[in-house]
Amino acid sequence: MRTELCDRFGIDYPIFVFTPSEKVAAAVSRAGGLGVLGCVRFNDADDLENVLQWMDTNTDGKPYGVDIVMPAKVPTEGTSVDINKLIPQTHRDFVDKTLADLGVPPLPDDEEKSEGVLGWLHSVARSHVEVALKHPIKLIANALGSPPKDVIDQVHAAGVPVAALAGSAKHAQRHAENGVDIVIAQGHEAGGHTGEIASMVLVPEVVDGLAALGVSTSVLAAGGIGTGRQVAAALALGAQGVWMGSAFLTAAEYDLGVRTEGGASVIQQALLAAGSSDTVRRRIYTGKPARLLKSRWTDAWDADGAPEPLPMPLQNILVSEAHQRMSESSDPTTVAMPVGQIVGRMNEIRPVADIIAELVGGFEDATRRLDGIRDN
Amino acid sequence: MRTELCDRFGIDYPIFVFTPSEKVAAAVSRAGGLGVLGCVRFNDADDLENVLQWMDTNTDGKPYGVDIVMPAKVPTEGTSVDINKLIPQTHRDFVDKTLADLGVPPLPDDEEKSEGVLGWLHSVARSHVEVALKHPIKLIANALGSPPKDVIDQVHAAGVPVAALAGSAKHAQRHAENGVDIVIAQGHEAGGHTGEIASMVLVPEVVDGLAALGVSTSVLAAGGIGTGRQVAAALALGAQGVWMGSAFLTAAEYDLGVRTEGGASVIQQALLAAGSSDTVRRRIYTGKPARLLKSRWTDAWDADGAPEPLPMPLQNILVSEAHQRMSESSDPTTVAMPVGQIVGRMNEIRPVADIIAELVGGFEDATRRLDGIRDN
Repeated sequence: MRTELCDRFGIDYPIFVFTPSEKVAAAVSRAGGLGVLGCVRFNDADDLENVLQWMDTNTDGKPYGVDIVMPAKVPTEGTSVDINKLIPQTHRDFVDKTLADLGVPPLPDDEEKSEGVLGWLHSVARSHVEVALKHPIKLIANALGSPPKDVIDQVHAAGVPVAALAGSAKHAQRHAENGVDIVIAQGHEAGGHTGEIASMVLVPEVVDGLAALGVSTSVLAAGGIGTGRQVAAALALGAQGVWMGSAFLTAAEYDLGVRTEGGASVIQQALLAAGSSDTVRRRIYTGKPARLLKSRWTDAWDADGAPEPLPMPLQNILVSEAHQRMSESSDPTTVAMPVGQIVGRMNEIRPVADIIAELVGGFEDATRRLDGIRDN
Repeated sequence: MRTELCDRFGIDYPIFVFTPSEKVAAAVSRAGGLGVLGCVRFNDADDLENVLQWMDTNTDGKPYGVDIVMPAKVPTEGTSVDINKLIPQTHRDFVDKTLADLGVPPLPDDEEKSEGVLGWLHSVARSHVEVALKHPIKLIANALGSPPKDVIDQVHAAGVPVAALAGSAKHAQRHAENGVDIVIAQGHEAGGHTGEIASMVLVPEVVDGLAALGVSTSVLAAGGIGTGRQVAAALALGAQGVWMGSAFLTAAEYDLGVRTEGGASVIQQALLAAGSSDTVRRRIYTGKPARLLKSRWTDAWDADGAPEPLPMPLQNILVSEAHQRMSESSDPTTVAMPVGQIVGRMNEIRPVADIIAELVGGFEDATRRLDGIRDN
């Protein structure tokens, strides 16, 4: 399974995997895909530096990338103390009451409370770029669309291509005009930030929208991809590769989060149990619509009397300690976890290499089946 | 492009097209697909009889099918006069005020007011089945899932297979257990009644769910399909054929609705202008969630103060005269029209044969491209 992206990135398969886990990212790169490490959880640039040093020595010289979260428009900036003043007390009261109702334990007295994911802030995302460019990264992706022009120029000057997520052909065209090299067409069914248009419609629309501009921007399909059949479908729609995330949350190498006795994390346990109908697309995680695992936490925000979520970045700061408390509790029914509809197919913990092998083998099987239909 | 369904139905291509227009249905069958005529608009069984007689003489002996709308559970039954009593006056007032606000003219004094689509009622849908079975139909599809067991038996006794729409693997399994022969896996992006799960995830889930039962039920993919690339994607996902609807609303042969000077109908004009983001999934058409073209009518139901839609069949009876008035006005901004996200690609009026030719040619191109990726 080779497309032009394989030569361009020096990878065996056009499979790009976004993951917050460096263990998973490195395993993907070693298995022939491109592991893309999510930086948003690193509020401190030194922590990111340490992890990228680990990546450099654990990827066997294979290429890898990083993913930042930088809104195209500069949001409210400042320290979390300043921003905290913008959060209404009624929202804080709702979060406190909800956690109490759900029986989520408080943090231990000696544990530092999360300030919220500050990676959304331009200053922090810029520090991620600075740190990452000191490493032999092969891609910087931005989960919220085009980064600012000067960041694109900075990354290009280092010889690194830029990828950006898009939920419509119009957004994709804007990214290309801004100098973005790879558009990730992220369908409605995807986990995390996602638009209204499903992959089946979105991917060819983005491909054709870019072709109409006459640009050579490549397209990765994201949303709903977890098997080789889905890879074949995405490439049939005109994408040059796939961008995956959810399906690797249940990889054996994924080591974030509190472990259960069985070895899986509490969140993995929740993901393994969920079906494809068990997600919701809500603004409660970041302030922008993101697909999340349905849980007692998301139900609480859907109930009568729940407040409207706050805009980015306030909403994530509002709920950051709640996320921390829930992820440290051992109750899989109260989790706040972005995941796509493909969660219905995430039914076992598997090594990254096995997932990649199925994607490649399943792609080949699907295309041979199509040959039979065509040549019959 | 041949699958097992081609031999089973005596068709050239596994392309099944649902359409309310007999002109389109007949053209699809003549072009090598299976035209499936929607019966729900025929409140009077004699009208359906006349149209099926027309089909019999205009399909060149090629196979065709019909589509009925029969809820699995028997809804409130009775004449429209009885049912009318169940509709709150506040809802009627909202509809009247909205039409006035939108400037939709009243019906001419001499025109009979629509009683609403009574095809949802079991008695009417049963009359459709009775009439259809007197004709050489090759398929009866039910837009709302499994028909009642006795209807399935009646249709099977006539040697005709039964198809049913499903929005989840669980529904698909239930249909198969009820004796349904073909499941139409209808993704979130589809027009009309549709669930939450997008085609990319739903289609393989339905295929695998039926395989797990050990049944030979075939799967058609529906939702987001308008080009040959999308047909290739649907078949890559494991479907044995595709079920399309929206893409044929802008067929040249489609002759329902008020014409504009340019020859297209008012609704076709609205469809040609719409992008893939211009649909909404709402309960305002029938009482069950259905994807519709976004219009000033759907906006009115989304506005603050709008009432909650009524359950099926009340909602359609409530809005039936409004639908009639809007479709007879010549304002493309006030239409009530089910359509999928593929509407963004419906940008010209084309003969049915041209649409089918692109589907077949585009499928071949896409699969050859996949071969290159596989064998590279």
